[in-house]
Amino acid sequence: MNAPSNRWLNEICWDDQGLVPVIAQDAHTGEVLMFAWMNREALSLTAEKGEAVYWSRSRRKLWHKGEESGHFQKVLEIRADCDKDVILLKIEQVGGMACHTGRRSCFFNRHTNDGEWDVVEPVLKDPEEIYK
Amino acid sequence: MNAPSNRWLNEICWDDQGLVPVIAQDAHTGEVLMFAWMNREALSLTAEKGEAVYWSRSRRKLWHKGEESGHFQKVLEIRADCDKDVILLKIEQVGGMACHTGRRSCFFNRHTNDGEWDVVEPVLKDPEEIYK
Repeated sequence: MNAPSNRWLNEICWDDQGLVPVIAQDAHTGEVLMFAWMNREALSLTAEKGEAVYWSRSRRKLWHKGEESGHFQKVLEIRADCDKDVILLKIEQVGGMACHTGRRSCFFNRHTNDGEWDVVEPVLKDPEEIYK
Repeated sequence: MNAPSNRWLNEICWDDQGLVPVIAQDAHTGEVLMFAWMNREALSLTAEKGEAVYWSRSRRKLWHKGEESGHFQKVLEIRADCDKDVILLKIEQVGGMACHTGRRSCFFNRHTNDGEWDVVEPVLKDPEEIYK
């Protein structure tokens, strides 16, 4: 029998790599700030700490968002979708920047009618300053 | 040489199955309504039609969202993230429901402090009515 506090984790449909996609949304403005992945441990730690902990697929390790940049994400709410295979976090973004490029949101490329991607959000802080 | 209208598709980093994750967000309220996947053809058709066309991984075919339910998604904006491996659609949701359960958003399960998932959004229409 599982402890009650793990039941919600057991209900998640992890993919064949043990991961779920995660959307981080500004809890106040509704802006979608970033997208990442979590494994079971990352989701469990996120709930425990009240701060977003992802699984970095490229570095193959847990990634406490903000550990290098200081741009932690305070998690106000954790949602799951109808199939419980996608997570939506409602967050407060420390430092006002979620993107490693120094922009508020990662979704700064807008498709144009000419078939191009336009950059439509400003860099708020030079990444060299963020990660120095 | 690629035609200019395909350049934006060539810039997308498709995963090893030729897919990208896609977030559909209400263009007016900012609500995250659903999450799905697209292949190159789906994204191209989405831009062409101005309506969301996804790739159904379970049915292994193109899925013009709303083809069965009538709940089409009018696409006002297509965004890509910093790595161009995630798409964000800003949409108008026809019928006011994105979820196959008859709810406005798929993200209706909220994690509680007791380690449960609470259903926090109402069913607006019986799925049997939607898909009859």
